[in-house]
Amino acid sequence: MASVGPLGDGKNEVKEINTKRQSSVSQCSQNEHHFHKVGVPPRQKLFKEFASTLKETFFADDPLRPFKDQPQSRKLVLGIQAIFPILEWGRSYDLKKFKGDVIAGLTIASLCIPQDIGYAKLANLDPQYGLYSSFVPPLIYALMGSSRDIAIGPVAVVSLLLGTLLQSEIDPTKNPVEYRRLAFTATFFAGITQATLGFFRLGFLIDFLSHAAIVGFMGGAAITIALQQLKGFLGITKFTKKTDIISVMQSVWGSVHHGWNWQTIVIGASFLGFLLFAKYIGKKNKKFFWVPAIAPLISVILATFFVYITHAEKHGVQIVKNIEKGINPPSVKEIYFTGDYLLKGFRIGIVAGMVALTEAIAIGRTFAAMKDYQLDGNKEMVALGTMNIVGSMTSCYVATGSFSRSAVNYMAGCHTAVSNIIMSFVVFLTLLFITPLFKYTPNAILAAIIISAVIGLIDYDAAILIWKIDKLDFVACLGAFLGVVFVSVEIGLLIAVAISFAKILLQVTRPRTAILGKIPQTAVYRNIQQYPDAMKVPGILIVRVDSAIYFSNSNYIKERILRWLRDEEEQLKAAYLPQIKFLLAEMSPVTDIDTSGIHALEELYKSLQKRDIQLVLANPGPVVIDKLHSSGFANLIGEDRIFLNVAEAVSSCSPKLVEEA
Amino acid sequence: MASVGPLGDGKNEVKEINTKRQSSVSQCSQNEHHFHKVGVPPRQKLFKEFASTLKETFFADDPLRPFKDQPQSRKLVLGIQAIFPILEWGRSYDLKKFKGDVIAGLTIASLCIPQDIGYAKLANLDPQYGLYSSFVPPLIYALMGSSRDIAIGPVAVVSLLLGTLLQSEIDPTKNPVEYRRLAFTATFFAGITQATLGFFRLGFLIDFLSHAAIVGFMGGAAITIALQQLKGFLGITKFTKKTDIISVMQSVWGSVHHGWNWQTIVIGASFLGFLLFAKYIGKKNKKFFWVPAIAPLISVILATFFVYITHAEKHGVQIVKNIEKGINPPSVKEIYFTGDYLLKGFRIGIVAGMVALTEAIAIGRTFAAMKDYQLDGNKEMVALGTMNIVGSMTSCYVATGSFSRSAVNYMAGCHTAVSNIIMSFVVFLTLLFITPLFKYTPNAILAAIIISAVIGLIDYDAAILIWKIDKLDFVACLGAFLGVVFVSVEIGLLIAVAISFAKILLQVTRPRTAILGKIPQTAVYRNIQQYPDAMKVPGILIVRVDSAIYFSNSNYIKERILRWLRDEEEQLKAAYLPQIKFLLAEMSPVTDIDTSGIHALEELYKSLQKRDIQLVLANPGPVVIDKLHSSGFANLIGEDRIFLNVAEAVSSCSPKLVEEA
Repeated sequence: MASVGPLGDGKNEVKEINTKRQSSVSQCSQNEHHFHKVGVPPRQKLFKEFASTLKETFFADDPLRPFKDQPQSRKLVLGIQAIFPILEWGRSYDLKKFKGDVIAGLTIASLCIPQDIGYAKLANLDPQYGLYSSFVPPLIYALMGSSRDIAIGPVAVVSLLLGTLLQSEIDPTKNPVEYRRLAFTATFFAGITQATLGFFRLGFLIDFLSHAAIVGFMGGAAITIALQQLKGFLGITKFTKKTDIISVMQSVWGSVHHGWNWQTIVIGASFLGFLLFAKYIGKKNKKFFWVPAIAPLISVILATFFVYITHAEKHGVQIVKNIEKGINPPSVKEIYFTGDYLLKGFRIGIVAGMVALTEAIAIGRTFAAMKDYQLDGNKEMVALGTMNIVGSMTSCYVATGSFSRSAVNYMAGCHTAVSNIIMSFVVFLTLLFITPLFKYTPNAILAAIIISAVIGLIDYDAAILIWKIDKLDFVACLGAFLGVVFVSVEIGLLIAVAISFAKILLQVTRPRTAILGKIPQTAVYRNIQQYPDAMKVPGILIVRVDSAIYFSNSNYIKERILRWLRDEEEQLKAAYLPQIKFLLAEMSPVTDIDTSGIHALEELYKSLQKRDIQLVLANPGPVVIDKLHSSGFANLIGEDRIFLNVAEAVSSCSPKLVEEA
Repeated sequence: MASVGPLGDGKNEVKEINTKRQSSVSQCSQNEHHFHKVGVPPRQKLFKEFASTLKETFFADDPLRPFKDQPQSRKLVLGIQAIFPILEWGRSYDLKKFKGDVIAGLTIASLCIPQDIGYAKLANLDPQYGLYSSFVPPLIYALMGSSRDIAIGPVAVVSLLLGTLLQSEIDPTKNPVEYRRLAFTATFFAGITQATLGFFRLGFLIDFLSHAAIVGFMGGAAITIALQQLKGFLGITKFTKKTDIISVMQSVWGSVHHGWNWQTIVIGASFLGFLLFAKYIGKKNKKFFWVPAIAPLISVILATFFVYITHAEKHGVQIVKNIEKGINPPSVKEIYFTGDYLLKGFRIGIVAGMVALTEAIAIGRTFAAMKDYQLDGNKEMVALGTMNIVGSMTSCYVATGSFSRSAVNYMAGCHTAVSNIIMSFVVFLTLLFITPLFKYTPNAILAAIIISAVIGLIDYDAAILIWKIDKLDFVACLGAFLGVVFVSVEIGLLIAVAISFAKILLQVTRPRTAILGKIPQTAVYRNIQQYPDAMKVPGILIVRVDSAIYFSNSNYIKERILRWLRDEEEQLKAAYLPQIKFLLAEMSPVTDIDTSGIHALEELYKSLQKRDIQLVLANPGPVVIDKLHSSGFANLIGEDRIFLNVAEAVSSCSPKLVEEA
């Protein structure tokens, strides 16, 4: 059923007509009855064009759609529901869903309590601040968020990032109060950043951190975090403040003879073994997902009990000592709204807020795709932002969605954000009644829990897949990874963003071009490198430009086309074949052209004219054809040189070649 | 001769075959005999792929082509010729060419001498430095440059930019020696920047300044320069150091009662009238191009003579006073190679060097296209850089190609860079013998010459054309213009670059998508907005993605496609028409895809599966099909869902719809 194209059944006919018309030899002819005109879309009014561009940029997801054609009162209700989605899904909430949410909530609570205590340490904060951040933020998120599966709370990477950034400003051991105040300030601005991005619908900015960069960054952060745990794991008292692998290793080996504590190592190693085994069971059989989920809490209980009865703390095993009892104290007054630290907190907040956002949105999207529900990224950002703003006023530090806990939440069968409320309630009870029991919890067990948690962030498979798919992506991934591991978290982040941008710019600067040939027995013209049986058309060089033509690539494209032409002409000359008479530019992939692009086309046209070669265009898109007309280029080359597709252009040019021969 | 496509003559046949095959209802079928396989290009070795990417990025112009398959000695000769093109074209140089070059050289010399004196003032340097810069740099360029038409020397915009940047570091009236030394330092690093960019083949970086931005920047600079001339033109003694229009206007009107000198104004105004009239004649009739070219020199001679005999300088008419006699003194020792000013000179040099490069390359390309010869941008940069490095050691400041003088050079019939040598020789004689005669030249005449010269830089027509072609380009143009006029040259430049980059990123983030329909009586599927008679295919939604799918747009594209689908389904539902069963993504314009893009496709596939809609792809390019395979996505959706073109995909899916109905 090969398409019998214009070349196949129409060639002779066209030739005949053209002969009759006696048109000049090297011109393309166009017969209205046979060739289709390239459509010129109706010109839009300037304002309308501007409005539609604006809409696609900022309101691509059409958020006001449900509001359309609704009465005023209904709009109000919808507006409130848009801000508080709980009002919408809450109405259809039932006991069955509640049962699922309770089980999921309890599971993630048991996982989050030990993690929170450990993560707070990563941020150089006292353990209770981790628990605080698992109490208020999840509640706010449950009211405003639209993801059904995300589990909110402190996460390893953001805790580490915040800790690194904060301690480069204030020493947490010397000035713990200022440090904490700066932490709340940063959290406040992280929330402001997130909410602002969402409100102004700038959510697409986080898309500039590519998947590859995130994989590398996360892997690097996981290794850095695991290395930091060597302090607690080996019972080292003097430990570097730096996070790069070289400093940490020096610190570790420097204290090998007089700093390691064997009791600590025994406790840590045995429980790490237990945790990893639990993980293995959970991975082996999805039914046992709850084993790794509750293993940390069990380890904490066992280890605490063990230290309590053996008084191991007297043999150098470091313990948590004291977690303040009671729920979050207010902290509005602790935020720096003036002074030097305002600006520093602002800067740190932006970075931490963006990274937290990236993680939360990635999680949200992943699970939304799995359960196929819509997730409004911008609305989500407003929810996350509000949650952190409120958090900063109630002694929380930056909270976001946790990869590992969200996965557990999903597998435990959560239905809605109610699981976050349940978790939050359990944390609330913990804060009120159980914190004193953590006194004898050895730090080594927290280190083991964090190590076993962050191992999951190292995604070998993703890295291998990235290597397979796109080498440049892999460079971004590796750059981010090495930057984090060998320098610092911020540098890794910077490298990731820089490589991602450079990649875009490179690909905009050096787009691909291809020589097309006709696939036998069809009217289809394709890249001769991709389709080796595609045949070049004698006398016509068909070049496809695989990109919009912008100032950044217009010169390259022009010169690349002339190079294709030069190469082709030399080959033809060497083989004593007839020379090229038509240069046919297939414009299908040219989605846009700017003034520099039009200039380049004009220069190309002039160069070709000097060589007695005709420029012919095939299938310019709506934007391009519009600009070709408005710039007068269509008139310059002649409108009869612009064709609907390559096949029609070739069948218009070929007869002329035959005549000339 | 409409192409009778697969739908036309093959539909029944396929239907028949598929019915026989009893394939499942909602699956596309693919019959080897009728559908063409999408070609998978042979996988390249990693190194080869890397090398070819590197080659396209840095050696797109294939500079080593003539060296291929040549003996060693020939390669050496070619290498020397590549560095000094004069050795190549000099061998075929003859008397006829020389005649043309002499006439052109004399014409541009007469134009450049008064301009040089004026432009040196823009750079806050003594007049002789302008002449120095028209002596050495053109000689060096003539040896190394490959443009035949460019006229080298100081230019207005670079002089102004350099002057502004330098005086923000050192006050030229208080510390003239340090100021001059910094100027040479900046010139040295401008040359280093240019040569380095050329040597490392980073020439494409200057392409990032778009045509639109240059038009706006040049226009703004011209107005700024003209405003600066009001000082000399009105005979004002106290004048602002700032260049923005508001400061200048305050300065001008502030001194209206006691600062303007009527004799100066009379001289300036009458000669400006003469110069503009000469310009008008030159424009009216191309034969009289020499009239505006020699008018400045005639004005200078007449005005100087007039001041000399009337002793107008005693009535407040400011004159040049003294131009040092003799050729360029060496200035190697004056360059700051250490200390604070090294870094400042370096910074200023980079900016000035890049702007100078942009201007020279734009000129070179324009004339190369007009006479159709090849211009190697990178080699050109090395030539310009070397010329400025040597210049900085011989008391020259940054020289580059001048728009106005190059045009005169071209029209006067220059053949080679010998015209630059002639001009340089005339400047040499001027420096040796004639400079004392400029003593009585009134500053007003220099102001008039500069005003009449820079007026040509304001390109209304280009700005109007930009407005017509591309509104966003116009914003970049206007931003650069207003930035220069209302703030400063650097800010204007910064705005131009920032808007240009933002434009690229915006278009990479929000690519266009289109719904395709079948153009009646063809097998061609096109955007239904561009071709209103294109018909949608019932049950199949055909979406074309008009961009490479990268991390920056992958989520947008996925969600935009789902939105097209939702809109379409609602319409169909409202009209009680059968629902969509196939989503056909036309991939022709998708020139590349990265790991984030593959992820987005996977998510799209999952979402569609939940709705019982099949995802079908048409015409993925070589890179894309390769990545679809290496990522396993091709297997996920099934290789029989990937078609050569839309027509074949539709004719494979349609029978299934019929069966189902």
